[in-house]
Amino acid sequence: MYRKVSDSTVRRLSLYLRILEDVEDPRGTVSSEDLADQAGTTAAQVRKDLSLFGSFGKRGLGYLVPELSGRLRQILGLDREWRVALVGAGRIGAALFEYPGFRSRGFEIVAVLDHDPAKIGERWGNVTIEDVAHMEEVFAETATQILIMAVPARAVQELVDRAVAAGVRAVLNFAPAQVKVSQDVALKDVNVVMELEALSFTLSQGREGR
Amino acid sequence: MYRKVSDSTVRRLSLYLRILEDVEDPRGTVSSEDLADQAGTTAAQVRKDLSLFGSFGKRGLGYLVPELSGRLRQILGLDREWRVALVGAGRIGAALFEYPGFRSRGFEIVAVLDHDPAKIGERWGNVTIEDVAHMEEVFAETATQILIMAVPARAVQELVDRAVAAGVRAVLNFAPAQVKVSQDVALKDVNVVMELEALSFTLSQGREGR
Repeated sequence: MYRKVSDSTVRRLSLYLRILEDVEDPRGTVSSEDLADQAGTTAAQVRKDLSLFGSFGKRGLGYLVPELSGRLRQILGLDREWRVALVGAGRIGAALFEYPGFRSRGFEIVAVLDHDPAKIGERWGNVTIEDVAHMEEVFAETATQILIMAVPARAVQELVDRAVAAGVRAVLNFAPAQVKVSQDVALKDVNVVMELEALSFTLSQGREGR
Repeated sequence: MYRKVSDSTVRRLSLYLRILEDVEDPRGTVSSEDLADQAGTTAAQVRKDLSLFGSFGKRGLGYLVPELSGRLRQILGLDREWRVALVGAGRIGAALFEYPGFRSRGFEIVAVLDHDPAKIGERWGNVTIEDVAHMEEVFAETATQILIMAVPARAVQELVDRAVAAGVRAVLNFAPAQVKVSQDVALKDVNVVMELEALSFTLSQGREGR
C-alpha cells in the first residue's frame, strides 16, 4: 500500500512526530506552516507527505495534535512493540543498549549476542549476553524482528546472512561495510565516519572552490 | 568547484574508498564493475561519480588502486587532519570518543566539553573535559573545525548557535532535534531512533500492504 514512499518522506514523518510531541499545547492544533518551519521544509511538502496517508486537518484550522501524532505513530509502526536483537557487545553496542530513546519508542532490546567468551553470560539489564554461535536459537526464542549489528566490518555480512536465513527482515547496521541483503529485507546503515567524511568533503570544497 | 555534488555521491565516494582499502592486491587495479558490485551500484554510476572529479582509469585496464584511493582521500578532504570538538561527555559522547575509526581517518578529537561539574576536569586520553560555558575560548585555543554534538535535544540549538558564532563551520549532530544553521555551515544528523523508525515503517508497510 505504501510501497512508493521515499526514505526522505519517512524521515520527515519521524520529524513531524517529534515536533508534535514537543508542542506547547499537546491538545491544540498546528498548521502545516508551523510543522514546515520547524522541520526545515515547506508547507506544501508537509501537506504532500501527509496526503500520502489519507486526509488530515481542516482548511484554516490546521491539524489536531493528538490526532495527527496518533496517526503518525500508526503509519510509522510505533503503535506496537518491536523486538530487537543487538549483535556486538562492544562500546557501540553498550552505548546503544543504554540509549533511553529506544524503549520509549517501543524498540525493546530482547537479546544481546557476542562471540567473546569474556562477555557471554554477562548480565545487561534484564538480558544475558548470549553466544553468537547460537544466534538462530536466540532469535527464535525471543521472536526477534529487528537486528542491530554493532560488530567489526569483516564479521557483518556473514552474521546478517545467517540472521536473514533465520527469518529476520530488518537490519540496522553500524559496521563500516556495505551489507548486501535481498529485496525483502529492510536495511539501514549508520556510519559515523562517513558522516564526518561528508563534512570534511564540504569543508575541503570550500577550500578549493573559493 | 564541487558545489553540485549530491550527498549520495559523496557517500558513494566514501564507500569506494573503503572498498579500495580492502582489496586483496593494494597495488593492483580494480574495474568500475568491481567497485559497482561491492558498492551496490552500477558501473555507469561509478564512472559518473568519478568523472565529476577528473579523469581516472584506463579503458580496459580499470583504476590503479593506490592512485584512485589517493585521489579519493584528497577529494574527501582526508589528506589532512581535522580538529574535532565533542560537546557532551555522556554515554554517546564516550562511545564516540573511543571510536577507533576517527583518528585513523584524520579526525582528531582535540576537546571534550560538558556542563556537568562532576565531569569537568576529568581526563579522557590526552584531553581534559572542559566546561561548556567556556566553549568559545576552547574552540579558539584548539582551532576546532568540526563539532560533534552529543547533548540532549533541548540543549543542542543554543550550543550550535554559539559554536557557529565562534566560527565553527561543520556540525555532526547526534541530538534528536532538527538543528537550524545558516547556509555556510555544513550539518549532518545521526539519529538512530529515526533509522529504527524507518525500519518499523517498512515492516508495518508489509503488514498493511499484503
